[in-house]
Amino acid sequence: MALQVQIIGVAGMPEVRPGDDLAALILEAARGQGVDIEDGDVLVVTQKIVSKAEGRLVDLRQVEPSARAQELAAQTGKDARLLEVILGESRRIVRQERGVIICETKHGFVCANAGVDTSNVGGGMVSLLPENPDESAERIRAAVQERRAGISVAVIISDTFGRPWREGHTNVAIGVAGMSPTRDYVGQSDPHGYVLRVSTMAVADELAAAAELVMGKLSRVPVAIVRGFDYQRAEGSARQLIRPEERDLFR
Amino acid sequence: MALQVQIIGVAGMPEVRPGDDLAALILEAARGQGVDIEDGDVLVVTQKIVSKAEGRLVDLRQVEPSARAQELAAQTGKDARLLEVILGESRRIVRQERGVIICETKHGFVCANAGVDTSNVGGGMVSLLPENPDESAERIRAAVQERRAGISVAVIISDTFGRPWREGHTNVAIGVAGMSPTRDYVGQSDPHGYVLRVSTMAVADELAAAAELVMGKLSRVPVAIVRGFDYQRAEGSARQLIRPEERDLFR
Repeated sequence: MALQVQIIGVAGMPEVRPGDDLAALILEAARGQGVDIEDGDVLVVTQKIVSKAEGRLVDLRQVEPSARAQELAAQTGKDARLLEVILGESRRIVRQERGVIICETKHGFVCANAGVDTSNVGGGMVSLLPENPDESAERIRAAVQERRAGISVAVIISDTFGRPWREGHTNVAIGVAGMSPTRDYVGQSDPHGYVLRVSTMAVADELAAAAELVMGKLSRVPVAIVRGFDYQRAEGSARQLIRPEERDLFR
Repeated sequence: MALQVQIIGVAGMPEVRPGDDLAALILEAARGQGVDIEDGDVLVVTQKIVSKAEGRLVDLRQVEPSARAQELAAQTGKDARLLEVILGESRRIVRQERGVIICETKHGFVCANAGVDTSNVGGGMVSLLPENPDESAERIRAAVQERRAGISVAVIISDTFGRPWREGHTNVAIGVAGMSPTRDYVGQSDPHGYVLRVSTMAVADELAAAAELVMGKLSRVPVAIVRGFDYQRAEGSARQLIRPEERDLFR
């Protein structure tokens, strides 16, 4: 039997609103497609619906831009109120050039606009990243396991990030629960007896990327189930994927 | 029916040697697992077996390090002969710090050691990236399609790269044939009528990352079949994934 991993898109979810019980909505939508969550599944949930459920939305019409936001608006041509929100979500600006603002978020993620996003929100609102995406993942995980007694799952909160050197965006993990976000080959040898050069794979990011293949941006598939991947069961945290500044050659 | 993508690992391939017909080996190994390549499949093939089949191997014992390689060896503690090979594969060194050498390869990829690798090769040999990974992908694609008349497939050559800001490595596409490596949302609106902020997904990189989930480093699964992903059929090239230097904030 071939080693096989399945990625199953979960469609048919309603528009998520603040306070919604995501685990219940996900289980119901999956069941509506004839899919039951199983032991060992990884649920990849897009940040956008997590932020909505957690009420991490800001109405730009009620934002008063600071002097710094106004200065940045003059430099970048962006909305000063949006920049005020971005600055509020940032520890610092890593690069600002040609209208692009790469921030280090309060969590430590390095991404454009500190993850503040106008798409798929509506009504002059913008969405912020979850306050603590690992906790968001853990809450969903606990709620799924409560409803499906006897199974253990992992949950990844994914977001769409750009990266240096390469064109295009990929989905990465910003929140992790129930699994180690990495897989280590440390100290192992390859079949020739060489110690392997590459020692750590960021499997949570690879799972987030794999899930994006069934998501698309417009097809309303905000959740994917990855089935058949033998992850390492552990508490886990997406913060383990953040390279400390002192070991980063590009910050 | 749920939207579903399958990732099928192809195990049971023999040790690849220079001159081997990879397409034949892949089809045979897949069939040995009861899997036939189908129309619309994406074959993700690890760089290592492509380099071996193409004889892109160097015996370090026959390398004479230049003065520059010796200087670099003194700075980094690495083998001067290995550095000579790395320099030969590089356009330039992007960063060199704490024993890490990030190069821009002759193809334009930015990665550690210009892709020169000692693992899984054996006998004092190192492997280089394929001379032209897009052509390597196209050759495999043509040979598969010749043997399986009437079907069209895409081929991705994958390699394991690190990245700034985030820990761990992920697999990315260094060669592409038969598909567009990106999926564009340019000019599309989300359900709220907003023009989407994220316009281009690097799907070839996401496919390479997804494939890694069934590969592992030691389990001898050098090929994965991704089935059910609706890619855009096109000539395609991994070079479309290289950000031009003038638009790169981190080079």
